[in-house]
Amino acid sequence: MDLFTPSVQHWLDLAGIFVFAISGALLAVRKNFDIVGMASLAVVTGLGGGVIRDVLIGAVPPAALTDLGYLLTPLAATALVFFLHPQVERINRAVMVFDAAGLGLFCVTGTVKAHAYGLGLIPSIVMGLATAAGGGVLRDVLANEVPSMLRWDREIYAVPAIVGSTAVVVLIHTDRLSAVTSALAATLAFVLRLLALRYNLRAPRAWRRHSGSADQDAAEA
Amino acid sequence: MDLFTPSVQHWLDLAGIFVFAISGALLAVRKNFDIVGMASLAVVTGLGGGVIRDVLIGAVPPAALTDLGYLLTPLAATALVFFLHPQVERINRAVMVFDAAGLGLFCVTGTVKAHAYGLGLIPSIVMGLATAAGGGVLRDVLANEVPSMLRWDREIYAVPAIVGSTAVVVLIHTDRLSAVTSALAATLAFVLRLLALRYNLRAPRAWRRHSGSADQDAAEA
Amino acid sequence: MDLFTPSVQHWLDLAGIFVFAISGALLAVRKNFDIVGMASLAVVTGLGGGVIRDVLIGAVPPAALTDLGYLLTPLAATALVFFLHPQVERINRAVMVFDAAGLGLFCVTGTVKAHAYGLGLIPSIVMGLATAAGGGVLRDVLANEVPSMLRWDREIYAVPAIVGSTAVVVLIHTDRLSAVTSALAATLAFVLRLLALRYNLRAPRAWRRHSGSADQDAAEA
Repeated sequence: MDLFTPSVQHWLDLAGIFVFAISGALLAVRKNFDIVGMASLAVVTGLGGGVIRDVLIGAVPPAALTDLGYLLTPLAATALVFFLHPQVERINRAVMVFDAAGLGLFCVTGTVKAHAYGLGLIPSIVMGLATAAGGGVLRDVLANEVPSMLRWDREIYAVPAIVGSTAVVVLIHTDRLSAVTSALAATLAFVLRLLALRYNLRAPRAWRRHSGSADQDAAEA
Repeated sequence: MDLFTPSVQHWLDLAGIFVFAISGALLAVRKNFDIVGMASLAVVTGLGGGVIRDVLIGAVPPAALTDLGYLLTPLAATALVFFLHPQVERINRAVMVFDAAGLGLFCVTGTVKAHAYGLGLIPSIVMGLATAAGGGVLRDVLANEVPSMLRWDREIYAVPAIVGSTAVVVLIHTDRLSAVTSALAATLAFVLRLLALRYNLRAPRAWRRHSGSADQDAAEA
Repeated sequence: MDLFTPSVQHWLDLAGIFVFAISGALLAVRKNFDIVGMASLAVVTGLGGGVIRDVLIGAVPPAALTDLGYLLTPLAATALVFFLHPQVERINRAVMVFDAAGLGLFCVTGTVKAHAYGLGLIPSIVMGLATAAGGGVLRDVLANEVPSMLRWDREIYAVPAIVGSTAVVVLIHTDRLSAVTSALAATLAFVLRLLALRYNLRAPRAWRRHSGSADQDAAEA
């Protein structure tokens, strides 16, 4: 399960959790939540995807509850945002780049772990997506917002994760998974997400659903 | 656990998942979500109830992640709605009839599976209800809507499932559960749901809560 | 795991579930839900925290599905609110006192159970908080409201639970956990919550986030 040396993998995991947690804490500030709300959204965003995966594949208690670093990292992110949220907001563009890196990392590690627990190739893709995007969905649900991942007017988030997870599954199937190739798969998802942000790439809506803005407003009301 | 021959049971399951998934994909179209949102709501609506049950009774990984057909069926429903959503909306009445059939089927299979995993009779009823209605609740939560099942102004959905699950539990208790009797229990829930749709049957609100519309609007605001 | 004699612990559990369930059923009445919505919110509020904990620590099926009393208690609370909701609303202040008692009880029992299942001290605190506050968060999510626990304009709820759980963990660590000391930890959380209600204690928002009301309204819109 450790694609790199254990400690490199572990530090990468913590970095990914940290940037995800930042996005949770920032949303809490925007929603005018208190520090409990900030810490809650940070924990849920940083660890939620992995917890969903672990509960579904039967890896309980989830890593989030056995490795203390996993639990303390979102709290560190909360502290940072608590004191420096205007500065963090100002570098929001940089935060989104790191978030894209977390997306790439977690779709790969999630897929690998699910397959290691005996899941088939296609279900492992789904678990890779759940690991990478599940925390963000939980964050939005808790904040009483429509999940960003489902919205048409946001740059694609799930598609890069699915591409990265699919690449991993192809690597597993062709027996070519290694530290190098899995890093390439993570990079693929990362670059795709960056391109989506840069060029405003969106996923299509249902065929011939080119609703005017009035219709759209009604649907979102 | 297989009430009928395994393959008949399996095809019925897939049919139920398909119609549930249709309702998820249609809601996504109405909410102006993209294809990722459509597929997400389809998967969650079609498989969510069974996954909740499987996680709670300890049957992990859930069937939704071990049987590839379960995972691909909601994606097929997504493809159908993607290309033909106006036509599917037009036969919405027919969709609701199939949805009622899914409700009847899943409250029965959910109750039977929970009991097979060692749960008592009353908890098995709850798991039957969770299997039949849990996906729809998750769908509405993800779409940031008040769950249809909880609303007073919707025809009863949970009550037919509870009646069907209770019938199964009575059959188990009296040692009369068979393919024929469980089909009868599913039919009972199915017909009750159809009657609810036809005659606008609703469950009561709290005693003496005959609020005017202003009050109601405030509560729903 | 039983801090007191088993039957005392059991009756305290049921009492805590009952008052939590009351708050769920009352919110359902305010939201104009039907009796299914009332029972659903009552069950989820009363049992949700314990179920989240049990699923995460691997104690499945959760106690809520193996002990019939756990399942029937929220239904009794639903019946009470169904017939007497104006009277229950009128004694809402008393309900909140009992709710604070439930908070104190569940943060203690949740922490103890998580530690008994092999979790470390810090994760056990998190599970204590999840047990005490998880049901209320699920209640608010299902009712499509911003979770009360996350909001800045509500008296602190999570903080007393964290204090109570931390006290338990200190007692475990110093090998002083007993019926008496754990009752003291529960009382500590209980009193802290009562003080929060009495003196309108709130947790801070992010540093220098002293937004005007317009800003606040926008954030909550």
